[in-house]
Amino acid sequence: MVIHGHRATLERVAGQVGLTPTSLRWDAVEVVEPDLDVDPAQAPGVCQTAYLESAMDRIMEQPEGCVLVTAPINKLRARRAGFAFPGHTEFLARRSGCGRFAMMMAGPRLKVVLATTHVAIGRLVEALTPRAVSDAIVLAGRSLVEDFGLSRPKLAICGLNPHAGEGGEFGNEEQRIIEPAMETALEELASFQPERRGASGASVDLVGPMPSDTLFWRAIQGDFDGVVAMYHDQGLIPVKLLDFDRTVNVTLGLPFVRTSPDHGTAEDLVGTGRASPDSMMAACDLGLAMGRRRWGAAVDGSDR
Amino acid sequence: MVIHGHRATLERVAGQVGLTPTSLRWDAVEVVEPDLDVDPAQAPGVCQTAYLESAMDRIMEQPEGCVLVTAPINKLRARRAGFAFPGHTEFLARRSGCGRFAMMMAGPRLKVVLATTHVAIGRLVEALTPRAVSDAIVLAGRSLVEDFGLSRPKLAICGLNPHAGEGGEFGNEEQRIIEPAMETALEELASFQPERRGASGASVDLVGPMPSDTLFWRAIQGDFDGVVAMYHDQGLIPVKLLDFDRTVNVTLGLPFVRTSPDHGTAEDLVGTGRASPDSMMAACDLGLAMGRRRWGAAVDGSDR
Repeated sequence: MVIHGHRATLERVAGQVGLTPTSLRWDAVEVVEPDLDVDPAQAPGVCQTAYLESAMDRIMEQPEGCVLVTAPINKLRARRAGFAFPGHTEFLARRSGCGRFAMMMAGPRLKVVLATTHVAIGRLVEALTPRAVSDAIVLAGRSLVEDFGLSRPKLAICGLNPHAGEGGEFGNEEQRIIEPAMETALEELASFQPERRGASGASVDLVGPMPSDTLFWRAIQGDFDGVVAMYHDQGLIPVKLLDFDRTVNVTLGLPFVRTSPDHGTAEDLVGTGRASPDSMMAACDLGLAMGRRRWGAAVDGSDR
Repeated sequence: MVIHGHRATLERVAGQVGLTPTSLRWDAVEVVEPDLDVDPAQAPGVCQTAYLESAMDRIMEQPEGCVLVTAPINKLRARRAGFAFPGHTEFLARRSGCGRFAMMMAGPRLKVVLATTHVAIGRLVEALTPRAVSDAIVLAGRSLVEDFGLSRPKLAICGLNPHAGEGGEFGNEEQRIIEPAMETALEELASFQPERRGASGASVDLVGPMPSDTLFWRAIQGDFDGVVAMYHDQGLIPVKLLDFDRTVNVTLGLPFVRTSPDHGTAEDLVGTGRASPDSMMAACDLGLAMGRRRWGAAVDGSDR
C-alpha cells in the first residue's frame, strides 16, 4: 500500500486522536511525499492537488493492477490553488486519457450508475443524450462482470418521467432516448470480452425503462444486480436512504480501479476523534475487492 | 360504516376466496346500492363511477365528520364509461368545490406531500409554480396538525436540483420559486386555526430547501415530521422503497378525509385469494385515525 501525503501531518493528527505509531502500521505502508516547499497546514489546497498528481504519476506508469482510493478534497481550496476540474473524477479521466467514464454509487444493497450527474432539472432533457445513457449502461454492465464477478448480471434501467412516461402520456424520452440507448448498449456489450480471467462470454441482461419508484424497491428484493439512473437525485435518494454511511463512490471507465468515500472533508471534525472512518474503510475494502476480481492475485494490497 | 357497492357481487367474490357471510360482518355495515340496470360483472366501468357518485352524494350532505376510503378504479374502463377525470382525486375535488388539494403518501416512516404529480421532467420547471409549492406546504402543515395531531410539526422542503442547486451552480429554482413559496406558506400558516379542538395556536416549522438525497435519510432518523417533494419520483422513490405495501395515498385539502390504497385493481388476481388486503386495511385504519383526530369522537367508524 502506498500513501501519497505528508507523513508528519498524518502522525500529528493521529496523535491528536490517540493513535500510536504502532497502530498506524507504517511498516506495511510506503509513504510518498511530493517535494513541496509549503507547510501542509498553511496551504492544504496546494498539497491535496500535489498528492493527487503524485498518485497519478505513479499509477500511469502501469495502470493495470492499480487501485486508487481518494480521500475527500475541499473543492474550493483546490480551485484556489489552481485545480481546474469540477472534482476528482474529471481530473482522473483527463490524466488517464479516458474518453468516457461514469459514477457508480455502491452500497451493500444497491449499485447505481448515473447517466448524468450535476445537471439542473431544467436542463436535464438536453443533457440526457443517447450517448450518455448508453455509456452509463455499458460501463455499468462491464463493471458488474469484471469488478463484481457476476457472470450474467441483470441491469435495470430507470425511466426519466413519472411512471416511465406511461406510454408517452407525460414525456417521451423513454422512447426517444432511453430505448435506443439500450439497443446501442446491448450491441456493444455483446462483443465485450471481460478482462477477468475465465469470465469470457459473460453477457448482461437489460430491463426497462421502468418507473423508478417501483424499480428501486424491486432491486432491493433481489430482482436486479445493478441500476442505471437518469439523474443525480433519482439514483442518490435511494442509495443514501438505505446505506448512508456505507456507500462508496466508484469511477467506472478508468484503466485502474478508483473508489472514494461519499462524504466531504468535514474540516470541523479534524482532531476531535468524532469523524467516522466507516465510509473510507468501505472504500478501501471495495477497491481492493474490485481490483482482485478484475486482475486476480496480481493486486498487491494488504488487508486491514 | 357504509359501503357503496353491489352486495351480491361482494358476497360472490368473498365466497370465491373462502369468506363466509359471518366473517363479512354485514350486521356492522350499511350497503348502499346505486340504482343501476346493468350487471356489475358486465359493465364494471359504469358501476365504479356510480359507486363514487353515490358516496359523494351522501358525503356532501354533511362533509364534516366523513372519512372516504376509495378502492382502486380501472382508469381506462372508467374513462370509457364517461368518467372525465384523470383519477379519483380530481373528481373528488370538483364534486366538493375544492380549489386546492394535494397528494400525500403516508407510510409508517415517511409522510410526503407532492408539489406536482404526473408531469414530464421536461415540463417540470414550468409546472412548479410558487403557488403549487406554497399550497403543498400549507396543506402538509395543516394536515400534520389537524390529522396527525402534532402541535408543532417540523416540515422539510426538498430542493428541485441536485445538491438543491448548490447556491445556483446548477439551477436557481430554489431561490426563484421554492424560497418565496416557503415565505408565502409561512404567512398563511401563521394565521391558521386548526379545526381540532384544543390544538389552537399550533404552528409549523419549515426547513429547506434541502438536497433531497440527504433530506430523506434525515427524515427517517426522526429529524422531520413530514416532507414536501417537488416532483413525483422525488417523493415516491423513498416512500415506496421503505414501505411498499403499507403506504397510503391521502388527498389533502378536501372538506372530508380521503384515503386510498396505493395500488391498482389487480384484475388478474380477482377470485384467486392471492391479493393482499394490507394496503386497503392500512388506508381504512389511517382514514379513521385522521378523522378522529380532526373531529374527535364525532367520527362514527367501527374498528376492524
